[in-house]
Amino acid sequence: MRNLSEDTITQAVLARHKDAPDARVKEIMTALVQHLHAFAREVTLTEAEWFEGIRFLTEVGHITNDQRQEFILLSDTLGLSMLVIAMNNRKPEGCTEATVFGPFHVEGAPQYALGADVANGARGEPCFVRGHLRGLDGRPVADATIDVWQADETGLYDVQYKDLQRHRARGVLHAGPDGEFHFRTIVANAYPIPNDGPVGRLLQALNRHPWRPAHLHFMIKAPGYETLVTHVFRDGDKYLDSDAVFGVRSSLIAEWVRQAPGTAPDGTRLDVPYYTLDFDFVLNPAPAGAR
Amino acid sequence: MRNLSEDTITQAVLARHKDAPDARVKEIMTALVQHLHAFAREVTLTEAEWFEGIRFLTEVGHITNDQRQEFILLSDTLGLSMLVIAMNNRKPEGCTEATVFGPFHVEGAPQYALGADVANGARGEPCFVRGHLRGLDGRPVADATIDVWQADETGLYDVQYKDLQRHRARGVLHAGPDGEFHFRTIVANAYPIPNDGPVGRLLQALNRHPWRPAHLHFMIKAPGYETLVTHVFRDGDKYLDSDAVFGVRSSLIAEWVRQAPGTAPDGTRLDVPYYTLDFDFVLNPAPAGAR
Repeated sequence: MRNLSEDTITQAVLARHKDAPDARVKEIMTALVQHLHAFAREVTLTEAEWFEGIRFLTEVGHITNDQRQEFILLSDTLGLSMLVIAMNNRKPEGCTEATVFGPFHVEGAPQYALGADVANGARGEPCFVRGHLRGLDGRPVADATIDVWQADETGLYDVQYKDLQRHRARGVLHAGPDGEFHFRTIVANAYPIPNDGPVGRLLQALNRHPWRPAHLHFMIKAPGYETLVTHVFRDGDKYLDSDAVFGVRSSLIAEWVRQAPGTAPDGTRLDVPYYTLDFDFVLNPAPAGAR
Repeated sequence: MRNLSEDTITQAVLARHKDAPDARVKEIMTALVQHLHAFAREVTLTEAEWFEGIRFLTEVGHITNDQRQEFILLSDTLGLSMLVIAMNNRKPEGCTEATVFGPFHVEGAPQYALGADVANGARGEPCFVRGHLRGLDGRPVADATIDVWQADETGLYDVQYKDLQRHRARGVLHAGPDGEFHFRTIVANAYPIPNDGPVGRLLQALNRHPWRPAHLHFMIKAPGYETLVTHVFRDGDKYLDSDAVFGVRSSLIAEWVRQAPGTAPDGTRLDVPYYTLDFDFVLNPAPAGAR
């Protein structure tokens, strides 16, 4: 420990952790130090580059506040978030896959009856969504809560509007006893992630765009099943192959079907075109004993 | 790119960087993403642990300001800083080794004549430092600037005192034409790195102490030689084997020799014990053409 060099320092750091009281903390920090050092060695990181990294992280820290989480954005754009989600949501073949949660979910969104318009004034073309919730065994899922949220036609979530006093284009629904659900909303559109900060500049340095393909968020909870956090992506979107946060899974792409003006699925008469989206979700049974 | 899973996501992220205009940025980000993902896979990072990491980095960002750089402290305590310094300061056998720069250097410290007391009022036992600067070929180094800085007897640097109007225990000296230097200061003491923030809590979770062994900082610049940033460590310090930032190299440990009250090396009469420190530095010639 008195003769540290580039060859001995990693082991010296790990030896210092040997008495960490929590085995999991020790395991995580051991792997972290090894990979951090291996990274620096692999690229022979210069002192100037190291300092640029310090500056970058400082900026990420300083732009982060209650409204904006630039570290999550960094994790999302480097694919770390999606990797963690995929590893922690390994579901049997046939279950609907999970994807990133994103930063725009709100606890306590308005509750709506089936068939209601969750847009609540958000601007966009009308869209009627419907589907069924089933378990992996094909049985209908009863007593499910469906939390939906999305961006409006300008690509913004309600929480991104300053001074907006009510929730728009988000809501909580309760599916029928047979797992059926339907509601009205607006068509989802592609939008760029916040790109006026250090993460935006990193994407630019990598010649990457900040866009996410159009999607509708779902969080579905039902007794006896694992909670499912996912999106449905809009087929045909030009960013499906280059989602800035790597959230796309083929099984989650669906068609928003354009319909001519006329009588909508909820019986209202529309004199503008509207869209319909049908999507069924398959939930994974929770392990016995789990709630 | 439409079917990302935990097995395919790393390659998908790397593919996205393929058109990065700067080859070095691309190289660094490729290695970073690979190691970041490998780390998460190796420990099967949970979603809760991932979020704890986000929280930790956010806190590091929020405590960092103009006076305090918690990201550098994090890099130091994880051994990354010392690794980067070692890799970028590979010197031939026989040269004085480099170590961490630390956060307490100040540009524009007071200039002193050889023999002066750089303590400038800082509290501590008197210490007389002297030595020679030589090149690797043994020839005296002419025209050298020696920047020294250190903590006082309470373990604090002058910049850590609020409202202190002058520099203490730091200064810039010019060595003689034969490379000789000598100055008066105070004895260096061990001190803890700032440990009231997230990095302090991390050290605690790893059962690590925050102490650095006593040391005197040097930055030595001379025409025709590589700049040397290093410390001299005090032999016998109980933290030499466990420096919180991994800066110790055996070749940098020296004895602070305790002397009985009497006539000090500068001719002054001292009625308290004092210390002497003798240390010679060997500089690496700069590559031809470098300044």
